[in-house]
Amino acid sequence: MGRVTVRERILRIRDGAAQERADTLVAEEPLEIRMNGRALTVTMRTPGHDFDLAAGFLVSEGVITGADQISTIRYCAGATDDGSNTYNVLDVALAPGVAVPEASLERNFYTTSSCGVCGKASLEAVSTVAHWSVAGDEANFAVPVLSQLPDRLREAQRVFDRTGGLHAAGLFTPEGELLAVREDVGRHNAVDKLVGWALREHRLPLRGSALMVSGRASFELAQKALMAGIPMLAAVSAPSSLAVELAADSGLSLVGFLRGASMNVYAGRQRVTLETASATPMAAPG
Amino acid sequence: MGRVTVRERILRIRDGAAQERADTLVAEEPLEIRMNGRALTVTMRTPGHDFDLAAGFLVSEGVITGADQISTIRYCAGATDDGSNTYNVLDVALAPGVAVPEASLERNFYTTSSCGVCGKASLEAVSTVAHWSVAGDEANFAVPVLSQLPDRLREAQRVFDRTGGLHAAGLFTPEGELLAVREDVGRHNAVDKLVGWALREHRLPLRGSALMVSGRASFELAQKALMAGIPMLAAVSAPSSLAVELAADSGLSLVGFLRGASMNVYAGRQRVTLETASATPMAAPG
Repeated sequence: MGRVTVRERILRIRDGAAQERADTLVAEEPLEIRMNGRALTVTMRTPGHDFDLAAGFLVSEGVITGADQISTIRYCAGATDDGSNTYNVLDVALAPGVAVPEASLERNFYTTSSCGVCGKASLEAVSTVAHWSVAGDEANFAVPVLSQLPDRLREAQRVFDRTGGLHAAGLFTPEGELLAVREDVGRHNAVDKLVGWALREHRLPLRGSALMVSGRASFELAQKALMAGIPMLAAVSAPSSLAVELAADSGLSLVGFLRGASMNVYAGRQRVTLETASATPMAAPG
Repeated sequence: MGRVTVRERILRIRDGAAQERADTLVAEEPLEIRMNGRALTVTMRTPGHDFDLAAGFLVSEGVITGADQISTIRYCAGATDDGSNTYNVLDVALAPGVAVPEASLERNFYTTSSCGVCGKASLEAVSTVAHWSVAGDEANFAVPVLSQLPDRLREAQRVFDRTGGLHAAGLFTPEGELLAVREDVGRHNAVDKLVGWALREHRLPLRGSALMVSGRASFELAQKALMAGIPMLAAVSAPSSLAVELAADSGLSLVGFLRGASMNVYAGRQRVTLETASATPMAAPG
């Protein structure tokens, strides 16, 4: 299994003086995901939780929606020069009867034949492929709870403080309880790892939950939240225009620049309340 | 032409109070790059400098090395519902005799048949495809000059302060002079836009220059620097293990955590000097 961090000798320069020292880097390695033996995609990722990554990728791309649709996931026998396994090639076997996707999976959400390629087509593609709707999800997130999520995510990150090079994604309940956290050199991979964990735990769709990410909120991250049935996406940094459009169109709540008690609500503001909810029980999730 | 920013109504929450206001978001739209009429790739990008983006993408992927290898770049006629152009589809016509690439371009650097897929294979793939070597580049970057690059990049960013959502990439001389800056919602796109600008200005290879990026330094960014013949990659944040390995293997200088007078040199330290160079002329670039 690949390592999550790598030690290197570096030259550290502070105040005009240079010092040789050891440093910890976040590991980056390619992972090839095969399906029934055929190469499907290659992603640069931080080793660890690779099965979750592969499973979550398939959910994000609309291939599967439940754990029973996967027959097996296994590392292919590797072939480095010394014959040892690289643990960088995974083969996913789908359960009998599950449709094997076309080759160019990742273009599903970017283009359709309808208008060449434009933002609108991308939004419509997500609606078409998404298995669940989050629009009716009545989960409620109070501002005092949202305010705590960045710190809780940070506390749960095991590697960040040592390398500074990892994106984190965490799943939280409306009470701010952390369900799971994943880290990766690629922000999309961190989210896929979380979604794959949820799939394998039979927790999909992730109704009533919030996805908190350490960086920005792009179209791709909003799409991944929707494909997993998550009604709230919160980000430490800025969202893009297309992420906001997708959230508004599909009923996803989108919070950005979440830093302590300040935040911006870009879409789905009905799920954000200023005060912690009273003892009145919330309506059952839709 | 798509807009670089988009205005939206948002809910801003500060100190327990919510206020409705207008906010500026960074625009994100898909761009499909076609080659001789055939779809090659789709990338989510911030509109603007699209011809540079397409040209730089082709340099990064090893398809072209000079401006004369492109015959024309043009926007395809769009087809939104009202018949107007989306400006989200580009067609690149290569000059006669230039080899048209295979379909799955982006896998070139991630996998070869040699060892399934591993970091080593990725490093070797870059060496095989790269047209220029940076190993002999004798450019020298003094610490006082490097220290100024983040601020200079920031000053040159036109959009960042309004949206907080853009990655920036800048090209600098060893004296710290800014040659060009590009911004994008995707860090790889910002670098491709710079490289495409250099191609169209007949400046490739970019010997003696430094590429400064606002975020982290991944394998992919190190690969793009090498494909453009850039000998110095500097990043505000952390590099990944594979970026450092690629830099060390190929003679690229890699500086990370560049923040004011402090920085870490991960590879190619021979190009970094503590003091500004004396009047002694440097050796001619290799």
